[in-house]
Amino acid sequence: MPRSGDAVRVDFGSGRCYDMRFAPLAALDALLTDAGLRRGRCVVVTDGNVSGRWLGPATGALGDWDPVIIVLPAGEETKSAAALHKIYDAVLPAGIDRQTPVIALGGGVVGDLAGFAAATLLRGLPLVHVPTSLIAQVDSAIGGKVGINHAVGKNLIGTFCQPRLVCVDTAVLQTLPALEWNSGLAEVVKHALIADPTFMAFLDVAWEHILARDAPTIRRMVHWAASIKAAVVGQDEREQGRRAILNFGHTFGHAIERVAGYGAYTHGEAVALGMRAALTLSSRLHPDYCTRQVMALVKRIPVRFSLSSQGICVDALMDAMRYDKKVQRGVMRFVVLCGDGQAYVTDQVSRDDLSAAWAAAFR
Amino acid sequence: MPRSGDAVRVDFGSGRCYDMRFAPLAALDALLTDAGLRRGRCVVVTDGNVSGRWLGPATGALGDWDPVIIVLPAGEETKSAAALHKIYDAVLPAGIDRQTPVIALGGGVVGDLAGFAAATLLRGLPLVHVPTSLIAQVDSAIGGKVGINHAVGKNLIGTFCQPRLVCVDTAVLQTLPALEWNSGLAEVVKHALIADPTFMAFLDVAWEHILARDAPTIRRMVHWAASIKAAVVGQDEREQGRRAILNFGHTFGHAIERVAGYGAYTHGEAVALGMRAALTLSSRLHPDYCTRQVMALVKRIPVRFSLSSQGICVDALMDAMRYDKKVQRGVMRFVVLCGDGQAYVTDQVSRDDLSAAWAAAFR
Repeated sequence: MPRSGDAVRVDFGSGRCYDMRFAPLAALDALLTDAGLRRGRCVVVTDGNVSGRWLGPATGALGDWDPVIIVLPAGEETKSAAALHKIYDAVLPAGIDRQTPVIALGGGVVGDLAGFAAATLLRGLPLVHVPTSLIAQVDSAIGGKVGINHAVGKNLIGTFCQPRLVCVDTAVLQTLPALEWNSGLAEVVKHALIADPTFMAFLDVAWEHILARDAPTIRRMVHWAASIKAAVVGQDEREQGRRAILNFGHTFGHAIERVAGYGAYTHGEAVALGMRAALTLSSRLHPDYCTRQVMALVKRIPVRFSLSSQGICVDALMDAMRYDKKVQRGVMRFVVLCGDGQAYVTDQVSRDDLSAAWAAAFR
Repeated sequence: MPRSGDAVRVDFGSGRCYDMRFAPLAALDALLTDAGLRRGRCVVVTDGNVSGRWLGPATGALGDWDPVIIVLPAGEETKSAAALHKIYDAVLPAGIDRQTPVIALGGGVVGDLAGFAAATLLRGLPLVHVPTSLIAQVDSAIGGKVGINHAVGKNLIGTFCQPRLVCVDTAVLQTLPALEWNSGLAEVVKHALIADPTFMAFLDVAWEHILARDAPTIRRMVHWAASIKAAVVGQDEREQGRRAILNFGHTFGHAIERVAGYGAYTHGEAVALGMRAALTLSSRLHPDYCTRQVMALVKRIPVRFSLSSQGICVDALMDAMRYDKKVQRGVMRFVVLCGDGQAYVTDQVSRDDLSAAWAAAFR
């Protein structure tokens, strides 16, 4: 069990690493300096939802920095080529150089978009994540996946860009809308399922405190979940092996998002539903693995509605899965569990198994 | 002196490397297979100039591969966001996966653009360069710089993406227009100047054969120049140090391109003119270094016209240099020579030095 006061290090070996620092937003300037960034020009990318509450405190905390501030519309539509070019157009004439940090102040959309901009401006500017959503603090701000969506599918355009620093203030989670909070819980539970039965037990016991956002509990939860993600990506930066287990529930979840229409479900809700399908699949492939308690934990994640009420058919979902980035030479690959905290990737999945898995998500 | 029959290896250490293979275009399928790529879907990006002469032979050489072919307009304007999104739009619905190679068949524009697409499609597809211009064979296809232009400047959007393989057939250079041939010679001469006095001597002796495109001579020249570039980038993949010497003449050259208007000069011509300025600067900083013979070699590179006939003033050029990607915290940095084959980077350059350097390029 990690101590929640410590920084979480994401370590790729050969001296390449960065830290997630757990500190109040007000400490931003000190954290930037600690990370070797020199005061001067910086870029702050945020969205309309976050800016109202946190842009003031963030720019206040930037002290002598000279920020170019870019506020984009909130929502998944902002993970677009159009928004990316808005950033390019605002930043490139503003006197930046290769030492100018790009600070992503926001949730997953802002982090992925600003991260992709940082990766591609002058062939790479230092990226600093200041995640303000639960999903960003435990998942999207760790590991370097950045990118935008394309009409054909989500996240199809992007690259890997490891941040220089991740600044986590769990206090900002107190003002998160319920829907976003619940969505983040899906990734928290997923991290537990694929890697850490002790963390599963913690979540099980602490669930009511978590839903009530008890401050010390969520601080511990975020730190623990982030540590799991950091350990997995540290072993496999570019998802050539083990890292793929982080996609547990995601092949199903992405299909749900695609078929339901982006925005009908949040990513977290889709993952929560996708995990039900992935767990059913796991129990079919491993009949000796009893998933009842795990399924109970997954079902405690509040999701607004079930697929059955959406008039979505299994055929459409099956079809949509083929666009997943994990598809290789036309073969679909799935993350399954063979025990609590034990995940692996397989392509040995029959059509019957998939139908049964989808049926579970519909129930 | 390298043997021209051998492959040139670009080696970043820790097992990360790739080969430049010198072979006829007809051997493409065998080279792809040698590089570990599995036959199936592939993407071929080329332009309207190259396609007429080499697309047929290339697709013929692809045998059982199933190519998505994208032919873009020839010219620097194609290194644009619009062309990049044309590639995304054509490739993403075509049933690709993370093993689908992107083959860049063309010169620097096609290589940089298709390379950037490969770097950002599904967070990275295998990239294969099949350079058809001299500048691409000795320079742009080696070292992993990919990107597009922005209204504010060239190459301001991009990343590093090392290819899986570079396939060089020097026979294709025989059909290159004179202007492109001459432009490529600028980078060849630059490689010699910054790193290899023996190669300078070779160029000096072989120059007439080179201008006449004597096949064995240019094969040897391309192999030699490519070896120099490979050695430099192998030591410094992300241009954090020594690699910057490859920009000899480029800070001046980029300013010329910007002020004259992109297309008025080819990149190579601008670099050839830029090297005159950079050499003058070098001789001012190192009065004991006699640059007369070197300048004579640089001036043998055929350039269509001189800056003086263009109504371009030094102030505009000085101003344009400030947008260079090598600028750090407002300080301009220059590559200078302190001897034949001995280059380094400095920011200790006065305004007088720069004016004198520009005056030399005007003469």
